[in-house]
Amino acid sequence: MTIYEKALEKHEEWRGKISTELKMPLETRDDLSAAYTPGVAEPCRAIHKNADDVYKYTWKGNTIAVVSDGTAVLGLGDIGPAAGLPVMEGKCVLFKKFAGVDAVPLCIDTKDPKKIIEFCKQIAPTFGGINLEDISAPRCVEIERTLINELDIPVFHDDQHGTAIVVTAAIMNALKVAGKKPEDCTLVVSGTGAAGSSIIRMLHKFGIGKIYGFNVNGIVIKEDADKYDFLTKELTEITNPDNKRMTMAEAMHGADIFVGVSAPNLVTEEMVRSMAPKSIVFAMANPEPEITYEKAKNAGAFIIGTGRSDYPNQINNILAFPGLFRGALDCRARKITEEMKIAASRGLASLVSDAELSPDMIIPSAFDPRVAQVVAKAVADEARKAGLARV
Amino acid sequence: MTIYEKALEKHEEWRGKISTELKMPLETRDDLSAAYTPGVAEPCRAIHKNADDVYKYTWKGNTIAVVSDGTAVLGLGDIGPAAGLPVMEGKCVLFKKFAGVDAVPLCIDTKDPKKIIEFCKQIAPTFGGINLEDISAPRCVEIERTLINELDIPVFHDDQHGTAIVVTAAIMNALKVAGKKPEDCTLVVSGTGAAGSSIIRMLHKFGIGKIYGFNVNGIVIKEDADKYDFLTKELTEITNPDNKRMTMAEAMHGADIFVGVSAPNLVTEEMVRSMAPKSIVFAMANPEPEITYEKAKNAGAFIIGTGRSDYPNQINNILAFPGLFRGALDCRARKITEEMKIAASRGLASLVSDAELSPDMIIPSAFDPRVAQVVAKAVADEARKAGLARV
Repeated sequence: MTIYEKALEKHEEWRGKISTELKMPLETRDDLSAAYTPGVAEPCRAIHKNADDVYKYTWKGNTIAVVSDGTAVLGLGDIGPAAGLPVMEGKCVLFKKFAGVDAVPLCIDTKDPKKIIEFCKQIAPTFGGINLEDISAPRCVEIERTLINELDIPVFHDDQHGTAIVVTAAIMNALKVAGKKPEDCTLVVSGTGAAGSSIIRMLHKFGIGKIYGFNVNGIVIKEDADKYDFLTKELTEITNPDNKRMTMAEAMHGADIFVGVSAPNLVTEEMVRSMAPKSIVFAMANPEPEITYEKAKNAGAFIIGTGRSDYPNQINNILAFPGLFRGALDCRARKITEEMKIAASRGLASLVSDAELSPDMIIPSAFDPRVAQVVAKAVADEARKAGLARV
Repeated sequence: MTIYEKALEKHEEWRGKISTELKMPLETRDDLSAAYTPGVAEPCRAIHKNADDVYKYTWKGNTIAVVSDGTAVLGLGDIGPAAGLPVMEGKCVLFKKFAGVDAVPLCIDTKDPKKIIEFCKQIAPTFGGINLEDISAPRCVEIERTLINELDIPVFHDDQHGTAIVVTAAIMNALKVAGKKPEDCTLVVSGTGAAGSSIIRMLHKFGIGKIYGFNVNGIVIKEDADKYDFLTKELTEITNPDNKRMTMAEAMHGADIFVGVSAPNLVTEEMVRSMAPKSIVFAMANPEPEITYEKAKNAGAFIIGTGRSDYPNQINNILAFPGLFRGALDCRARKITEEMKIAASRGLASLVSDAELSPDMIIPSAFDPRVAQVVAKAVADEARKAGLARV
């Protein structure tokens, strides 16, 4: 039985991967009077009087919404909100399992960015945060940025930043192992969509010296800016500083790091062989990577990361989002900033001790029980430092 | 300590009365691969291919949304969505506890009926039904009717119909005890808002002979129809058939049944004394009834119902909504009709056996474990009979 057949069978058995459950006893008339009428009027009155009390008397402080319009579900594309529900339920399972965050899947029947923004504002009173998921680019960026500006609860689009946080953590440790400084490094990123552009922004902020971005139209370059969507246009400010028009093979010549979030088989052994010594290759296209682990190894890559669990150094966003929201909820953050994401990366990177660090061990396992807690603390500390925390 | 102080203390201890929990194991990489990537792609593909499969592979079939804009929360009025959250959480607790229905509170930040309608349509892919709650009248009626017409999942506004279903059940049994036929009875209803107008419509459908409706402006009467909102205007078609302009005291003279969902102390002992023999008095204004149990008793009322748990015959909507949605979900009903509500009333009434029936025992207890199941079966049977069930 394939994993797909097994998953289908399991999903039919489960009929839903999450449920809502009581957190309190409801056995007697007294219980009923406290949880519902008439007693419940009192917390209602308290919140009406003091808005912040909603964190004190309701589920808001530990609960997020996982919102999707189903336009970019996994690699399946625009399959619609109902067909995206199994993924959003799965996401909610991970939030609960890895970080104790209550999470509700909301797959919604609209693709209009304005309406998605309005929807998220409408549900904001009920939730402590909003995780956007599987919304196609570049709409997802517009939606997220508007909501970050206009809401006072954390809003985070995992497809953009989840992988970026883990890639950044992995690069932090990889550079340690390779003995390189970020400012001395040249990085080539293949794929400048939601994930790729966030990776570029984070690694730029982290201090990587020179970055080249590639997409289906070739290298990102200032003189083509007018042809780009706003997201790609932004990248011209922080990539390709010498304004060179070249192929990816040319850019990889002498480069220190390759990060791929694009399409299968775009990278050859020759390209890896042409990189600087102690090269770092993260090939994460799904399900087929830009270059296989075996080929990259054979071509002499020093550190190899993939999206898969059956090779070393799995770059898995499960390492980021549960702890990130745990931290944001713990300190009642008003938003999640670039600095909080970098803090999450540092927390994550710190979990591999100097003694453990090696080319095959730059990032902790998804099942390492310390991950969410350490990421959460890093994020909450940074939010408090920046004055973005309520507690 | 008052019930209000106790409820506040408890709510602070609980910090949310419901949580989301896993329905499946997530301990190994295999579990992860089945519940999330890559396995989860398979149920997504299946639903994309066959829309009905969403009931087979997700939580939809057992999950409803409890949607409120916070404009009419308990007796507290328009306190806003956040302050209404404790009530909506409480409602979700009751759905789960009494009928095993997973329920998610969604308190939303808009009061525009069009936007509330749009919101409910947007979440429809995720939920098997929508329970509207604590939305002020007459907007709530417009919202509910539009959604019933335009969605293919059950939509139900409990403030309108929950009490109406239980009142109808109680009247069914009260008439048995009193030995009266519905068509021979005259009914006076005090309060023609959300609940009152639904009570009038249901009891008209049940076959009560003559109904008079009263609100703050006096009797509902055809010649004033132009001054009424659409909801009150509709009542002129089924109340006050002889077009009499009279006071409530005059209407109650010789009446068989009084139902109050209005305001305290509107009914005197004299008014009750003037009713027909074996009179039925349901005084349910909250927290102070139209006439106290003691006064109604003293004035010779034969059967008395209240909204309170400390007197006989508690007319409590908890007897209706959990079983109603259980039944609607069990048969995947496309909507909830008047006939399904009457079926719910009949199911509920049937739980008091002829041997048990007495003036102090016309309706089962909220904690009677048979209630939800019997109501659910009655509702699902009726939906199937009407061709409104998917399974």
